[in-house]
Amino acid sequence: MTDKIFRVNMSDLTTRVEEVPAAWAGLGGRGLTSNVVAAEVEPTCHPLGKNNKLVIAPGLLSGTQAANSGRLSCGAKSPLTGTIKEANAGGTSAQMLAKLGIKALIIEGKPQVDTWYSLHVTADGVSINEETELIGKGNYEVVTTLNTRLGEKFGVISIGQAGEMKMAAANISIKDPGSRIRSSGRGGLGAVMGSKQIKFIAVAPTDNKVAIARPEEFKAANRAFAKALVDHPVSQALGQYGTNVLVNIINEAGALPTRNFTSGQFAGHEEISGETMYDTIVAREGKPKHNCHPGCVINCSQIYNDKDNQYKTSGFEYESIWALGADCCVDNLDHIAEADYIMDDLGIDSIETSVAFGVAMEGGLLEFGDGPGVLRILREDVGKGTPLGRIMGGGAGNVGRAFGVTRVPVVKNQAIPAYDPRAIKGIGITYATSTQGADHTMGYTIATNILGVGGKVDPLSQEGQVELSRNLQIATAAIDSTGMCLFIAFAALDSETCLPALIDMINARFGIALTADDVTNLGMSILKTERAFNIAAGFTSQDDRLPEFFQEEPIAPHNVVWDIKDETIDSFWNF
Amino acid sequence: MTDKIFRVNMSDLTTRVEEVPAAWAGLGGRGLTSNVVAAEVEPTCHPLGKNNKLVIAPGLLSGTQAANSGRLSCGAKSPLTGTIKEANAGGTSAQMLAKLGIKALIIEGKPQVDTWYSLHVTADGVSINEETELIGKGNYEVVTTLNTRLGEKFGVISIGQAGEMKMAAANISIKDPGSRIRSSGRGGLGAVMGSKQIKFIAVAPTDNKVAIARPEEFKAANRAFAKALVDHPVSQALGQYGTNVLVNIINEAGALPTRNFTSGQFAGHEEISGETMYDTIVAREGKPKHNCHPGCVINCSQIYNDKDNQYKTSGFEYESIWALGADCCVDNLDHIAEADYIMDDLGIDSIETSVAFGVAMEGGLLEFGDGPGVLRILREDVGKGTPLGRIMGGGAGNVGRAFGVTRVPVVKNQAIPAYDPRAIKGIGITYATSTQGADHTMGYTIATNILGVGGKVDPLSQEGQVELSRNLQIATAAIDSTGMCLFIAFAALDSETCLPALIDMINARFGIALTADDVTNLGMSILKTERAFNIAAGFTSQDDRLPEFFQEEPIAPHNVVWDIKDETIDSFWNF
Repeated sequence: MTDKIFRVNMSDLTTRVEEVPAAWAGLGGRGLTSNVVAAEVEPTCHPLGKNNKLVIAPGLLSGTQAANSGRLSCGAKSPLTGTIKEANAGGTSAQMLAKLGIKALIIEGKPQVDTWYSLHVTADGVSINEETELIGKGNYEVVTTLNTRLGEKFGVISIGQAGEMKMAAANISIKDPGSRIRSSGRGGLGAVMGSKQIKFIAVAPTDNKVAIARPEEFKAANRAFAKALVDHPVSQALGQYGTNVLVNIINEAGALPTRNFTSGQFAGHEEISGETMYDTIVAREGKPKHNCHPGCVINCSQIYNDKDNQYKTSGFEYESIWALGADCCVDNLDHIAEADYIMDDLGIDSIETSVAFGVAMEGGLLEFGDGPGVLRILREDVGKGTPLGRIMGGGAGNVGRAFGVTRVPVVKNQAIPAYDPRAIKGIGITYATSTQGADHTMGYTIATNILGVGGKVDPLSQEGQVELSRNLQIATAAIDSTGMCLFIAFAALDSETCLPALIDMINARFGIALTADDVTNLGMSILKTERAFNIAAGFTSQDDRLPEFFQEEPIAPHNVVWDIKDETIDSFWNF
Repeated sequence: MTDKIFRVNMSDLTTRVEEVPAAWAGLGGRGLTSNVVAAEVEPTCHPLGKNNKLVIAPGLLSGTQAANSGRLSCGAKSPLTGTIKEANAGGTSAQMLAKLGIKALIIEGKPQVDTWYSLHVTADGVSINEETELIGKGNYEVVTTLNTRLGEKFGVISIGQAGEMKMAAANISIKDPGSRIRSSGRGGLGAVMGSKQIKFIAVAPTDNKVAIARPEEFKAANRAFAKALVDHPVSQALGQYGTNVLVNIINEAGALPTRNFTSGQFAGHEEISGETMYDTIVAREGKPKHNCHPGCVINCSQIYNDKDNQYKTSGFEYESIWALGADCCVDNLDHIAEADYIMDDLGIDSIETSVAFGVAMEGGLLEFGDGPGVLRILREDVGKGTPLGRIMGGGAGNVGRAFGVTRVPVVKNQAIPAYDPRAIKGIGITYATSTQGADHTMGYTIATNILGVGGKVDPLSQEGQVELSRNLQIATAAIDSTGMCLFIAFAALDSETCLPALIDMINARFGIALTADDVTNLGMSILKTERAFNIAAGFTSQDDRLPEFFQEEPIAPHNVVWDIKDETIDSFWNF
């Protein structure tokens, strides 16, 4: 079976199954979504108009037995940043789409009428159906209803109310093995799906298997790869405390942005730390470790229960906890968990939205620390699309404009996440130069700046940050194309066997002979393709800058400013 | 007396009187504000932060007896567009500042605390005073109160509630001879003044006279100049019907954007036309003609009374009437007049805000035609700064983002005014290439495309539009530097005596010998200075584009799209 492109035109409600063009044959995940968007989307088009396209693609190894290979990439021109955008998440759909022989699902056009639709994807093609029952519903109800309507084995890719309302912070949600919510979080891709008036995409279960050209070689490589993953100490920490292990680490580093980025340490850090979270989960009979897609060996997710030991949220990440916690000064993990649940249900980026609350608090909307106020606004305003909800749903930059706040931590209009670039300068290079706006996952220098993975680069020095960020952004673009979770990067950076085993798996899967250089070249090519799109959309090096307050306001405890010169930032692209 | 720069630093509440640098000696009005902003403001700064500067400058001929020379220029980096910005208006302050010997008032920095201030300008300098009584008040109350507090002869430059709230569509208001409101309307300069926490600037009356180097030559030139103005038929039409004479003309041309730019003709055009307005004004004992600054010989303004013959609004312009009228389908001139009054009082751009209502109507906020709904939202939401008010106050682009509307008529995030670029292609070139976002006053091709002034260029043809717009933009930049009202351009284009007389006045005023080429070179230099600022701020030719819907949706009755090629647009800058 040769993989195919499934194409859906929402203007005339037609679908097609197409051969994969030769140029895209070696691509998957982000490499594929970015190349399709770059080839088929006019860079200056309106992100919510008929000329934008939503591209959904499993990775090169998705659907195989490869450990941690279940990430699904979604790509389009972003309504939040105006740049090209890829966001990926776990869940079950990536592996299912791959097993159905679908290289990518390309959704283009836009209905002429207000009718809402769903897509039903099988190995034979896509059907487009009118949908009424689930319109206006949250992601949890969508999943529950579809589990009844279609059966629990179906994959579900959906938007909540935020996506229906085309909020710029809306995300795309992907059902996980426990019928909970994973989010392709950043950049408003849920609004693109909403603009096409698609509430959900149901992916049919299948007994198909992905063809492996050299099965024995694949199995051996996967064993070595999985061993490298589970042996790495960061994998182990992630398995115990989840990503939220970072609260205390980043607070200690003085880089935990607090009170809308006015300090680097949060007095309430213990209350929201990974350690406190772990104890709370255990005491309430939750699950401290849990996978977001079948085959994950790291298990960084968890089930966080409420005081009555009932499910509250999962995939409860450091960056979301930081954003409502330290950045909004909410030192109550239950309030944060409740907000996380609501944001998953509404289908809105928990980083963007929570940073937006920090800006709004500075603008006087709420007092810092007012967790119940945040919950009220999420439910009553964002969920119902009141004017205030639409302001908040437009993201941090939008909130800054609405309330006249000038300390607005965004790059290319996307909220800066949980690591202050003044105190960890490598991540500042990533925020500035990323093709997709501020995003720690694009080149996670925290690994080397703070965690000592892949060497050591002093976070407070100006030296070596550009090279660090560049190498990581190139590697990340390649990893994001494999369907692999980014958390394989820790092992890949430190273990001699991990990356060769990953390449061996790709070669065994397709019967090819890539080298490490080929993979690096793939990463570089993806970055350059993405950047070319942005330049054609009107972006310049002036957009590769942090907001001026980072240069002017020293942050405690190190009392440092962002002091990397513009020319140094721009040297990132010298490759 | 040599003119001086008066400089106010709102960070440390200090003021200085400075010599005029030689490079700025020959500049006034827009030429001066744009050069100061280009020289002193970091192009990438936050427009509402301490690094932006508000520059207020009378024109080269302001304060003299020259006809129509009372325009005041305000300049800064715009919070609406992110570009450099100049907006000018009539009123009494330009002439008073010039007579006080003030070449420009430069306001920089930003207070550290929430205190509000006023500035008091005399020939000796500026004093900074705390202000409490007028905070939260509209422009009409500001003027009335200051007339009592200081005397009616004081000039007043103020912001309303919109500027206090730093709304991106807030304007700067200037008291006119009748103590009514003139607006430096576009680009949110009122928000910049608000960010500096200055509620108003009082300008002391003076008996000083502006020195004229060659008085007799000046008088003779002014006589010839004024005669050319009053003799021109467009001046005469403006004097009778005001700018609103254009409703029927542009409707007939099929270029009156209607129902959020979905048609070129408005069924209700007669109800809102200049002719209807004139009859209404006469019947209600208003004033059909009226000047906005002393010395105007065109008198395009008027006093529009309500049904009880009481003052309702003045300076009731075609573009504002079009925006709420045709674009929002409100066919009731009293509703539009009431809205105009409220917007003047709140200090918010009536073009930007009304186009924003058209977008909001498409987004479902109100029905098209709901004038009372517009009035309610202006009073209850914009005036009170509710979340909905803050969405509307952010301008048309902001409203499009909030409600997920894709038909959003903006260039560089500034609303396109009252002439559809599909049916009048010259003005489309101006919208696209203007250094300041969509703005008809930057290069008013309507003169030649529609009114037959300065020749004739077919509005529907692709031919000649770039050259037309270029020549007019260059001339406009020069005129905007003289303190002259732009309406002198009609006579300047057609009369052989008008422009030479204007140049003679400048030469007689300063004892110099400029030629027509010098004036053209001044205009070109201003445009290039402004563009260089924008490029340094990150703008590219991709920003010199109309929204894609103009290329895709033909407009009735001509059923034409915007079909000027990108390369043709970009050739604008070949000079």
